[in-house]
Amino acid sequence: MKKRDTLLEFSMTPLDKGESVSAYVSRSIDIIDKSGLEYKLNPMGTVVEGTWEEVLQVMTDCYKKMSSDCERISVHVKIDYRKGKTGRLGDKIKSIENKLGREIKK
Amino acid sequence: MKKRDTLLEFSMTPLDKGESVSAYVSRSIDIIDKSGLEYKLNPMGTVVEGTWEEVLQVMTDCYKKMSSDCERISVHVKIDYRKGKTGRLGDKIKSIENKLGREIKK
Amino acid sequence: MKKRDTLLEFSMTPLDKGESVSAYVSRSIDIIDKSGLEYKLNPMGTVVEGTWEEVLQVMTDCYKKMSSDCERISVHVKIDYRKGKTGRLGDKIKSIENKLGREIKK
Amino acid sequence: MKKRDTLLEFSMTPLDKGESVSAYVSRSIDIIDKSGLEYKLNPMGTVVEGTWEEVLQVMTDCYKKMSSDCERISVHVKIDYRKGKTGRLGDKIKSIENKLGREIKK
Repeated sequence: MKKRDTLLEFSMTPLDKGESVSAYVSRSIDIIDKSGLEYKLNPMGTVVEGTWEEVLQVMTDCYKKMSSDCERISVHVKIDYRKGKTGRLGDKIKSIENKLGREIKK
Repeated sequence: MKKRDTLLEFSMTPLDKGESVSAYVSRSIDIIDKSGLEYKLNPMGTVVEGTWEEVLQVMTDCYKKMSSDCERISVHVKIDYRKGKTGRLGDKIKSIENKLGREIKK
Repeated sequence: MKKRDTLLEFSMTPLDKGESVSAYVSRSIDIIDKSGLEYKLNPMGTVVEGTWEEVLQVMTDCYKKMSSDCERISVHVKIDYRKGKTGRLGDKIKSIENKLGREIKK
Repeated sequence: MKKRDTLLEFSMTPLDKGESVSAYVSRSIDIIDKSGLEYKLNPMGTVVEGTWEEVLQVMTDCYKKMSSDCERISVHVKIDYRKGKTGRLGDKIKSIENKLGREIKK
């Protein structure tokens, strides 16, 4: 079985719906939340943890929903793949806190 | 006084220090933590809230430190400016949860 | 047949190979060049034009090659989807030049 | 004198002006074109070459213009700093072509 060694952060925004887009973003979060993958929402995007194929699939599911009623969509994606390493959704922040010897805001 | 209506998420990574870079990232987090600005760390970057000038300055401070002993640096930045709106570091996630009618992972 | 209405720009960088990575980037460009899709290389990434599925597939092909001998990979992706609009790889720049009434550097 | 060893690619988009934004993007390109810095436009953004301070300044100039009549602005930035290396706006692509032994689309 393939390891969930890929973190993908993405934000997906319609450009044709005006400046308030949270109704559209909420539908994506709902899809991610029900995907079964581990994830964390932050103020600028959502980080999903899975295999390469899994994280691209959940992003594609969000795109399919959004493109059903949006004419132009902008997506920004950051991927951090580390061969064989899992559990990094929590471990990356812990590693920073260990280095600093104190807790930081998260 | 200028409003803190700018959210900036960034990650700054040396390319010449091998695959484990948390020692370098920690120094940036320390600079951000001591800047006085509100921020939130996530597994893929840090979101800082301030005026346009403030958020670029803290990123520049991190660059100055990192470039003191790193030869090549890769930076990725996402900025969300919304005129006159403050407090969005927390409000953006609350807005999504309100739309969904439930809490989500963050 | 699905329209090639998706532009995807990406850069894919190994973090465990030192500061000079052009040998690894070249292999990706070779894969893109042989994919049959329209593309344009720029100093910071490659823009590929296709359907949503086509552009994600060529990026996945590059990932498969790079992950065969790299331990940690960082990928940054920007997608611009515009329903039903094709030929934008060239048209977006022309549109800017038309607006300005002169040629610009590209 | 500081070396122009920083490449910055950015795209800056208003979210409150509908799906066609080239009128606003054109104003940014005009600012960049008149800045005196070397740059290259591509279909997904503009790559500017300068010192760290110069490239952030031209981006800030574009932000000031855009925020004069736009309520919400989304900016995406990629920076590649390589200590003491200049002329990379052209050299990075040549390096890829040298590795491949042929010209590619740019």
